[in-house]
Amino acid sequence: MTALANDYDPGVGLVDRKYATWIEPLQLESGASFGPITLAYETYGSLNARRDNAILLQHALSGDAHAAGRHSWNDRKPGWWDAMVGPGRAFDTDKYFVICSNVLGGCQGSTGPGSTNPATGQPYGASFPVITIADMVRAQARLLDCLHIEQLHAVAGGSMGGFQALEWMVAYPERVRGAILIATSARHSTQSVAWNAIGRRAIMSDPNWRGGNYYGHEPPNDGLAVARMIGHVTYLSDISFEQKFGRNYQGTPGPRYELEPEFAVESYLEYQGRSFNDRFDANSYLYITKAMDYWDLPGQHGSLEAAFAKSQAEVLLLSFDSDWLYPTSESQMIAAALRQVGRAATHIELQSIAGHDAFLIDYAEQVPFVQDFLDSL
Amino acid sequence: MTALANDYDPGVGLVDRKYATWIEPLQLESGASFGPITLAYETYGSLNARRDNAILLQHALSGDAHAAGRHSWNDRKPGWWDAMVGPGRAFDTDKYFVICSNVLGGCQGSTGPGSTNPATGQPYGASFPVITIADMVRAQARLLDCLHIEQLHAVAGGSMGGFQALEWMVAYPERVRGAILIATSARHSTQSVAWNAIGRRAIMSDPNWRGGNYYGHEPPNDGLAVARMIGHVTYLSDISFEQKFGRNYQGTPGPRYELEPEFAVESYLEYQGRSFNDRFDANSYLYITKAMDYWDLPGQHGSLEAAFAKSQAEVLLLSFDSDWLYPTSESQMIAAALRQVGRAATHIELQSIAGHDAFLIDYAEQVPFVQDFLDSL
Repeated sequence: MTALANDYDPGVGLVDRKYATWIEPLQLESGASFGPITLAYETYGSLNARRDNAILLQHALSGDAHAAGRHSWNDRKPGWWDAMVGPGRAFDTDKYFVICSNVLGGCQGSTGPGSTNPATGQPYGASFPVITIADMVRAQARLLDCLHIEQLHAVAGGSMGGFQALEWMVAYPERVRGAILIATSARHSTQSVAWNAIGRRAIMSDPNWRGGNYYGHEPPNDGLAVARMIGHVTYLSDISFEQKFGRNYQGTPGPRYELEPEFAVESYLEYQGRSFNDRFDANSYLYITKAMDYWDLPGQHGSLEAAFAKSQAEVLLLSFDSDWLYPTSESQMIAAALRQVGRAATHIELQSIAGHDAFLIDYAEQVPFVQDFLDSL
Repeated sequence: MTALANDYDPGVGLVDRKYATWIEPLQLESGASFGPITLAYETYGSLNARRDNAILLQHALSGDAHAAGRHSWNDRKPGWWDAMVGPGRAFDTDKYFVICSNVLGGCQGSTGPGSTNPATGQPYGASFPVITIADMVRAQARLLDCLHIEQLHAVAGGSMGGFQALEWMVAYPERVRGAILIATSARHSTQSVAWNAIGRRAIMSDPNWRGGNYYGHEPPNDGLAVARMIGHVTYLSDISFEQKFGRNYQGTPGPRYELEPEFAVESYLEYQGRSFNDRFDANSYLYITKAMDYWDLPGQHGSLEAAFAKSQAEVLLLSFDSDWLYPTSESQMIAAALRQVGRAATHIELQSIAGHDAFLIDYAEQVPFVQDFLDSL
């Protein structure tokens, strides 16, 4: 056990990863049916007697079910939204029962391309079915059924987590009282598709990808690193890059005049690529980015207003002024469509230099809006 | 010979590529000396008796000496700035003697990593020296010496071409009467370094790169394609991507639910990557992007004002409002520094949705400013 400071606030403290498995196949948006399915999930706080205080958090592309707390006191870091989840925190576990599950297609305990296909005894690899955001949400709905939760107090997510929260409002309108949509979009823009497409190109042209069947071999680390590096630049802002790294050289005052990486920002991106390889499966990256690129709520429903026609949820939207991946204009579009069909929607643009990643970094600004919104529902 | 329309304006018409070679080594900014050096270049129009009507055009990362005209009437396309160069055009060859050379380190006739090292009889590959924008400009100065041109009427370039034009003003102040700086910057921003760095990472981790010694083997086409695709997204704007491709699927009305590329924008980027492989050398991409990333006029001189202290050139700056790679703010910074040290600088921000590529696409808007500026010198 590591020594902890006296003023250390353990938040939700030690948590366990749980699993739910369904043998019955899930009907996918593609028309295919797929099973068995396992979802890895975590919960924080307690479900009340009326079973009406549950909040479902949804994670972004590279996230997982581990939103808060630690699996062991030796963990280097807590869950990805730990500062937002816990007693007295934005998602207050003294009041709410908070659930977070790893998405279908993921690689952190839920069924994904790296899982064993029970029919063959081999990993699915590229034989895993191509899935959508709606499929991820259908799987989550099964989890809520298991937990006997009919209606959620709220769904909440940033980035791709916001896609899922939106899909919840649209696909299960009677099951969602409130939705917190952070740094997100109702459809993936052409430029966002382009970035993901280049990342997939890098992975799939890495010879170690082997058509997706690399398990038991060296994985396509170079391709996945390049994909992650591209993604990472889109998550930060121009200004935050400038402030963090400027034009500094790594380890030397100036150029060494060699082809190898020399700039501090290069070393940083290399590190991001390397550490992503340690924790993420390249095939999951392919499948999840595909699901993101398909994401097009107005396209699927004719218009955003039509998509929201049956939605009953009150909505809080937070966007960040330096986010150029899912800029404020995307949140404005969602808020406008909701108001058009008579739904309550509050949109706040927060100031930050952190770019898209602000939703994971700039907690303090988000907390009061999230708290007030959850209490008001 | 292809049939030409009656109203076809041949511009400068048929042109030849010329070569100049120097046995004497060039002193490089790194401290190394390097030679022999060949520059491939083209000229359009005639040098006048006073030898004072020469304009040096500088090309961008993927450009070459072939700025205007055709090498053969069968050429599918003319030079990269053909609409700007010719009788009566912005760079009017009835008045001016226009020169354009392929940069040192390039792969279109000038000495670069793909050239044969006379000492070994083998291509240089990664043994080619790492060069800078200043080195490119020093080589160009030799070319002007050969042509017995003491002072240029103007230097002009967009993007990396603008880096070279700026370096000309600073390194050879007495040799430059005017400078046209388009969609450019006085130093490569951290984010721009990041994009180039990821491109280099993709090339250098392609097993076909072979440490740079791939000549005579399959070149690192996958790595170079990924690098080019990344670059290409930075050259366009979000809006132009949206307008060109939207969320269209290639060949089908909707998703096919497969891992392979499905979106129109993906096919387009694939095509960009493929066609770049046909015309560009991966090692040149590494060396030229390194030179771009080193580019830091204020850093090298203490400040931008100090850099411009000896410059005598009048300056025209053009930027485009949708260019997020070298945004208007970069041109404003240059103009402000020039005015600070008492130089004449005109900066015009042009409206365009074409992003950084606007300098190669939106001619009509640039022509009057360039013509007036050149005539005023």
